This record gives sequence, structure tokens and C-alpha cells, in this order.
Amino acid sequence: LPSKLPNVGTTIFTVMSKLAAEVGAINLSQGFPGFDCSPELVSLVEHYLRRGFNQYAPMTGVPTLREALAQKTSDLYNVAYHPDTEVTITSGATEAIFAAVTAVIRPGDEVLVFEPAYDSYVPAIELNGGIPVYVTLTPPDYSIDWKTVREKITDKTRLILINTPHNPTGRVWTVDDLVQLANIVRDRDIWIVSDEVYEHILFDNRTHHSLMTHPVLQERTFIVGSFGKTFHITGWKIGYCLAPAELTREFRKIHQYLTFSTVTPIQYALADYLAQPAHYQELPTFYQRKRNLFLDGLRNSRFEFKPAEGSFFQTVSYAAITDEPDYDLAIRLTKEINVASIPVSVFYNQKNDYKILRFCFAKDDATLQKAAERLSRL
Amino acid sequence: LPSKLPNVGTTIFTVMSKLAAEVGAINLSQGFPGFDCSPELVSLVEHYLRRGFNQYAPMTGVPTLREALAQKTSDLYNVAYHPDTEVTITSGATEAIFAAVTAVIRPGDEVLVFEPAYDSYVPAIELNGGIPVYVTLTPPDYSIDWKTVREKITDKTRLILINTPHNPTGRVWTVDDLVQLANIVRDRDIWIVSDEVYEHILFDNRTHHSLMTHPVLQERTFIVGSFGKTFHITGWKIGYCLAPAELTREFRKIHQYLTFSTVTPIQYALADYLAQPAHYQELPTFYQRKRNLFLDGLRNSRFEFKPAEGSFFQTVSYAAITDEPDYDLAIRLTKEINVASIPVSVFYNQKNDYKILRFCFAKDDATLQKAAERLSRL
Ligand SMILES: CSCCC(=O)C(=O)O
Ligand SMILES: CSCCC(=O)C(=O)O
Repeated sequence: LPSKLPNVGTTIFTVMSKLAAEVGAINLSQGFPGFDCSPELVSLVEHYLRRGFNQYAPMTGVPTLREALAQKTSDLYNVAYHPDTEVTITSGATEAIFAAVTAVIRPGDEVLVFEPAYDSYVPAIELNGGIPVYVTLTPPDYSIDWKTVREKITDKTRLILINTPHNPTGRVWTVDDLVQLANIVRDRDIWIVSDEVYEHILFDNRTHHSLMTHPVLQERTFIVGSFGKTFHITGWKIGYCLAPAELTREFRKIHQYLTFSTVTPIQYALADYLAQPAHYQELPTFYQRKRNLFLDGLRNSRFEFKPAEGSFFQTVSYAAITDEPDYDLAIRLTKEINVASIPVSVFYNQKNDYKILRFCFAKDDATLQKAAERLSRL
Repeated sequence: LPSKLPNVGTTIFTVMSKLAAEVGAINLSQGFPGFDCSPELVSLVEHYLRRGFNQYAPMTGVPTLREALAQKTSDLYNVAYHPDTEVTITSGATEAIFAAVTAVIRPGDEVLVFEPAYDSYVPAIELNGGIPVYVTLTPPDYSIDWKTVREKITDKTRLILINTPHNPTGRVWTVDDLVQLANIVRDRDIWIVSDEVYEHILFDNRTHHSLMTHPVLQERTFIVGSFGKTFHITGWKIGYCLAPAELTREFRKIHQYLTFSTVTPIQYALADYLAQPAHYQELPTFYQRKRNLFLDGLRNSRFEFKPAEGSFFQTVSYAAITDEPDYDLAIRLTKEINVASIPVSVFYNQKNDYKILRFCFAKDDATLQKAAERLSRL
């Protein structure tokens, strides 16, 4: 069978998590919480499981969850999405991204991708015959040079993929970024997929500037969100897509044939849980403490870093310590000092190696302290 | 946004289930059980939920579930799939079908589809640029004319989509069908997706002849299965794909970017549940009773039928009653006598109307009896 994705091997997340398990390393590689979700959320799922909510949900998602999402979005961003025609529940953000890209891209279309980029974006583009066009962001700031972006836009550009707060760099978009992007797409047939799965995790009093908050962007954007990242339930694989009705109509045609619908009792439980804003409002404080704890532990190390602005990832430069390739170092650190991380080169098309590792700090305090101690020995 | 699937509207399942709910009709349209899953299975999910199995499962599925599936497959069909390299857990059979088609099909490839065909097959083909080539099966037997099949094979044929037991007709493949197909594909670069989600639901002492049981077919087939259909949990959206290692490698490259992984606590629970063969061995008796109950109720009606050989669907001809289009009749019966069904024309590319309705008999006995009574009044 000739491969449709000849360059794809085992994902780095599988490689590192597996190696970490094998050697008993602290696993700060794959992005998932090292602690459990709230018992209240588990009880809610149990409630619906026992009451027999175990057959197909509507293809679009259960009404109460779509309504709770629309309500949250209106409360937080003051943007109204209609729950019936503009909100769709998906089997995780990964499915939502694949469905949105598939809804838009045809063979030969160009898609602007900011790299470092999450690993599912480019395969989704390529499987639809699209051509990724890269805008390369570099450490330490990973800020966007808008002149470069404008130069990369052609008549064939159909889609731009955005991610804020950004994985792996932790950078968050500014209002100026939104304005710059709006000026580019304003009179063009360009759509946008905005991966905002870390929307609730921003630090140092920063605000999440969702792409939906700029009207020129809102009308052409598929906003992708994740309950997994927000409520510490990455294993429940449940996310969503918010988009204007015309876009949602096309999105759902794809979703319907990718997975059709998503786990019913979990949807009902999340509808109840989401209705209490405290459940997501507490996240910045919760994760900022963890970020600071981890960085305090690295203060006396030879790693260099700027504190992450958002997400639960921290990138650090090891240029002052060694000039090993980042992939080799990530493997070595897992084996030798038993701390697993992600080499950031994997998120670049050409595997650009800026000597940066990514650590996930969504872990217990003791784990983060122990990891920082081990890393400081280098 | 120009549509990638211009001909796709709201699926018939959503249309009919919604209408049934609105008018308070008995819903024998969409294929899902009208009763709950076993409390034991719910307890198992609760067990893993409470024990904190709430983060990402491995991309391929949790090992215990892959092992339990390999064991069941070996016990039932005497075919060995290696759990690590040949078994993958998916977000329902729908995702497995989409992933398998995507792994094989490139623009311009031809795909043989037997119609009536389940509604997700053709969009999956078309979204990958493939060209569906139809082999049309007709009532009352829906048997396959292998001469026609051979004539439709060209140098561009890359894939054949099979479904046994068959939805919507309830027909099951014979050993002769397997042999005929094997003779066609033997020396060709043709792969097969075999949708066997009703593998445990066969009647009148019939045996399920899985495509894996013929070596020439096995080596080129993606076998797709569903826990939803087997354990009365269609809302949990969990299925799987069995395929030789080389095929599984390509399948997983797609699965990894479609959904990445599937609900963790449910996977662990199903691993335990599947280990008790009684849980699937009881299905033929269970559903044959229901089929017979429904058909007994129709005995004195003017509907004509052959008892379904497998699946939980029964098709009936209404040609002796009226010559209305089947779609119109299905809507009318829902509204007037409050029994919802599926018009079988929707499963044909050209909407061939052979005056056939499909009824799902995975419902409580009382519901089936009441539905049959209402239908007998016609
Ligand atoms: C789907 S596994 C990867 C999880 C994640 O978002 C990350 O580690 O970047
Ligand atoms: C995914 S909804 C359709 C369920 C089904 O298999 C059917 O009704 O044919």
C-alpha cells in the first residue's frame, strides 16, 4: 500500500511518552495533566451513564452543551453564536481541526501555517491536497513579522491556521496581531482555523484575544476549543467548533462522516459543569503557580527562558549548556536524568533546531520540583 | 464558502429521528437500541473514571482492549491479529471507515460500492478525490451478480467497500461471495474495507463469514467493527479496525490526525467486558426474538418481506399497499400513524425507489408490538 503520508512516523508524543514510561522518567513531554479532573465532573458523567444516556447524541452535539457553550462565549467574549446553527461538538479539537481544514481545502489550495506548528495541522492540509506555506517564527519572542506574512499570501491562499495561546511556545496573540491579520484577509476569499484550546490558560493578567472578537475575522473563522485541556480530561476526547452558520453548515457535512457524534453522557455532564464559570475562571491562577514553581526551580540552572504567556507549556533554551541536536538531547535527558520533554524542532517543517525544549507543567507540584532539580544539575 | 459536498443535506437519520421526536412517533428509523446497555458495563466505566483513567489513551488504543479484541478474533474466526501492530481503537466505526478510505484513496482512484450503501461511504470516497463505481443490488434478494462486479473493475479500481451483515437490507455474505471476491482481487492492487459492525447479529443459525476468514481477502482488508452496535452503546462512539501490519501502519497515520485517540475509561471498561464471551454470544437469540416478534405483528398486514438474515434492520415492501415514493411514505407514516422508518431509496446513488422501508427492531418488545399493530392498519 503506497503511503499517503510517507513522511509521517510515530508522533513525537507517542515516542516520548512511551520512552518515559519505559525508563520511569518524569513525563513533561506530551501535553496532559498529571492530576485528575474534579470528582464533581466524574459524578456528573456517572449520573448520565446510570440514567441511560448511552445512545447516539445528535450529530451536532446535545442541545444543553451547545447552549452552555454559546452562553460562555457570549459572557466572556461578547460574541453571539447560535447554539443550533453555529456550535458543533466534536471528538476532540483534533477532529475539529481536521474537519475545518477538510471543509475548506481542495487540491492545489495554499494554506498559511505559522511554525513551530502543532503536528496535526500539516497532515490535515496535505490529506486534502493543500499546500502548506510556512511563516517561520523564531525564539526568543516568536513574534510575527507581518510583512513576511503579506508576502506569502497569493491568489491561491484559501486558509490560515492560527493557534493562540500557542503550543509549543506559550506566546499569545495581541490585539495588534488581530488587526494585522484582519487587514490581510479583509477583501480576500481566505478562511481561518483558530486553534484556541488554551483559551483559559493565560498568565500575568493577560487577556485571551480570541479571533472571534474582531468582526472581520469572526465572519471567516472556525474557532476550535477543547474541554480536555480546560477540565483536565484529555482522555475524554471532546472539543468543539464555533463558526458562522454558513461555515458551520460545511463543517458539519464533514463532521457527520468523520465521527458523526460524540460521547453522549460526557456531553450532558459537561453542559452542567460548564454552567459554573468558576470551573474555568480558576485556571490562570492555578497554572501560573505551576509555571512559576517550575521556573523557580530552573532559576539557578543554565537554561534560559522567558516565562510562557499562556498554555501549559514552557520552552527553554539549552544553548548555553550544549550544542547537541534537540531531539538527541530530549532522548538523552529522558534516559539519563529521567525527565522527558519535547524537542521543538519537530514542530518545524525543516526541523529547525534552535536548541529549545518544551516542558509541560500541568503536573503535581512535587513532580515539577523534582524535574526542575534534575534539570538544574546539567 | 464553496461546498466540498454540495449534494449532502441533513442526514436521513437526523431528519427522521427529529421528526419522530417532534410528533411523538415510535422511532424505528435511526439504528440504535431503544433499551439501555448492561449495568455491569456502566459500573466498569465508573470504576475507571473514579480511578483516574481520564487522560489520553495511547493513539492506537489501550493495550488491554487491543488484546481482548485479538483474543476474541482468534477465538471466533481463528485468525491472529497482533494487538500491537494490527488492532486500532477508533472513535466509532464511522471514523474507522473514513480513516481506511483515506489511507488508500487518491484523486482519480475508483472505489466499488455495493448499493444500497450506508450513507458515510460515498462522502468518504469523494472527500479523498475518489470516484464511486456502483454495483446495484435489488430486492427481494439483494444478491450479488459477480459478472457485473467483474465488469466494473478497471485498472483504476483501488478499493472495494463491503458490508456484511448488510445495512439496510439485512443480507449476509455467503462463503461463495468470499470466494468470488477473492478471485477478483487476487492478482490486483485492490484493497478492501469490510464494515462488519453487525458481526454478532445473525439469525436462523447463520454464521458470519468475516472477510478475514479468506486468506486472499484477509491480507488486503481493513475489518471495521463497532462496540456501539454490539453492546447497546451507540452513544459511546467506539469502534475498531483490524488489518495486517502494513495496512495498519497507514491506517494509524490517518487516525492519529483525525481524532488521535478514543475515550480512555470506556476503553478499559470494554476490555474487561469483552473478556466474557457471553456478552456477545447472547446477541443472535436476543435479536432473533425481536425480529420475529416484529414480523409476527406484520403477518396479517399487506407488507411483504423476507426475514432479515442479520443486523437489527428489517426491510419490507409496501408495493401492494401504495405506489407513493418511499421518502414521502416514510414521512407520512411518521406523522399519521406515528411510526418512523427509513426510506431505502436514500441508500441508492440515483435514489432508486423499490418501495421499500427499513425498520430498526432493536427496541423493547412492547414498542415493536405497538409499531406492528399500527403498521398493520394500513
Ligand atoms: C494528542 S497528544 C499531544 C498533546 C498535546 O497537545 C501536546 O503535547 O502538544
Ligand atoms: C450514525 S446514525 C445511523 C445509525 C445507523 O447505523 C443506521 O441507522 O443505519
